[in-house]
Amino acid sequence: MAGTDRSREIETGGPVVVLVEPQLAENIGMVARAMANFGLSELRLVAPRDGWPNERARASASRADHVIDGARMFATLGEAIADLNFVFATTARERDGYKPVRSPVDAARTLRGRSEAGQATGVLFGRERWGLLNEEVALADEIVTFPVNPAFASLNLAQAVLLVAYEWMKSGLEKETATPFSGPEMEPASKDQMQGLFDHLEEALDARGYFRPPDKKAKLVDNLRAVLTRQGFYEPEVRVLRGVISSLDRYTPENPRGSGAPTARPRTRKNADDERA
Amino acid sequence: MAGTDRSREIETGGPVVVLVEPQLAENIGMVARAMANFGLSELRLVAPRDGWPNERARASASRADHVIDGARMFATLGEAIADLNFVFATTARERDGYKPVRSPVDAARTLRGRSEAGQATGVLFGRERWGLLNEEVALADEIVTFPVNPAFASLNLAQAVLLVAYEWMKSGLEKETATPFSGPEMEPASKDQMQGLFDHLEEALDARGYFRPPDKKAKLVDNLRAVLTRQGFYEPEVRVLRGVISSLDRYTPENPRGSGAPTARPRTRKNADDERA
Repeated sequence: MAGTDRSREIETGGPVVVLVEPQLAENIGMVARAMANFGLSELRLVAPRDGWPNERARASASRADHVIDGARMFATLGEAIADLNFVFATTARERDGYKPVRSPVDAARTLRGRSEAGQATGVLFGRERWGLLNEEVALADEIVTFPVNPAFASLNLAQAVLLVAYEWMKSGLEKETATPFSGPEMEPASKDQMQGLFDHLEEALDARGYFRPPDKKAKLVDNLRAVLTRQGFYEPEVRVLRGVISSLDRYTPENPRGSGAPTARPRTRKNADDERA
Repeated sequence: MAGTDRSREIETGGPVVVLVEPQLAENIGMVARAMANFGLSELRLVAPRDGWPNERARASASRADHVIDGARMFATLGEAIADLNFVFATTARERDGYKPVRSPVDAARTLRGRSEAGQATGVLFGRERWGLLNEEVALADEIVTFPVNPAFASLNLAQAVLLVAYEWMKSGLEKETATPFSGPEMEPASKDQMQGLFDHLEEALDARGYFRPPDKKAKLVDNLRAVLTRQGFYEPEVRVLRGVISSLDRYTPENPRGSGAPTARPRTRKNADDERA
């Protein structure tokens, strides 16, 4: 999906992402991209099978070069996390041991709080095929796992990283429902504007005999206004509708081919304004 | 990541995922896997470039065969969504128009509510390179966008689908922080058990002259107990620690090579029990 604004500065900081013995260089690149998407920047690799640096990783990172260039390789997990204060291990399997198990939402809040307190944090991700070994999970403080479909629990490595990075980004938002941009700020139409719409439409319909039989007119008007009210139209939308009505109203039914005879209804300045949609 | 339990039934239902002119068959497969991970099952393809069915898509779906087999192809987006009641369009770019813009969290709640009300819902995803066209977004009811790093906003197609599926799954949980499994249910140790630990350790340390000078003993004891208290040890953890202390205590300092002379301290049944860790 497009939409990147390269004029914006790259977000950095946040937990270190540690990949333990990643098998495919392409996955490392996709991890780098996922990190960049949600503002993570520090990648550490423990004994990557395909070696490091790796051009296939860079190619699949879709220009997350700042993550690829900053990635560091370590021989052992112990060395990779030696300078960190708090570490989560990701796993899809229940493990023995006394470690608390957190959701990505909880884990992100913990990471956010500890990062803001100046602690160096990290999240461990295991091999594509079988994840982290128990002795690797044992090196972490807590476990984070994903609310996957138990019948299909195997997450792609880059997607596991994506979910952690996404929740990390969300944990820094004022509201978890915040969006980078929003719909147009529009005022619901005032009751006076709605009445203007009703009058305009009903006048045009009346000229064409829509409200028949006459003794049903009140009921027909009620129904019509109910339909138009439920939508909660915005003020600019009402202007569009007024324009539509004026256009439909421009030729009388007596002149279906529309040779240009103006409607009997005089067009007031107000109506003309209404048509500027 | 491993952990799949194939004895569990595949979750189905939820919004339809509609991919508009996906370019790479591999991405369609990764989309299917992401859907399966979080319980979505119905995939629709609008004019996929590489045609359909496609074996490369199946290969990259990592056995999400139920999604691949059920996928349907359509010539136009209009046909693909003809039977749906409510549709979100995903976009990373701000668009003109009057559509509300939602976060994935809000969108998932809307989809959950409408699905439970029996409505057929869907989410539209655009081409890998440039997303959805404006006239395609115009066919949707509302827009969903992701809280990406504005400097690196381009999400991989399967990852955009993953985030929507993940939030869909979360929207069905009793608590968004629920996890498929949890840490061991353990009681924090009782104050009596903690006192037993203190007594055991302090007796062993006293025998070795740890508390010197004598007039500092009270302070040293306070510090030691503070260190052991802050952890909030669980009852089984205290048993492990008692075992460790007993083991360290087994040889007296007068016999550093450990030739087997038992400690002066008689080992009571209570201590013996404590060591069953």
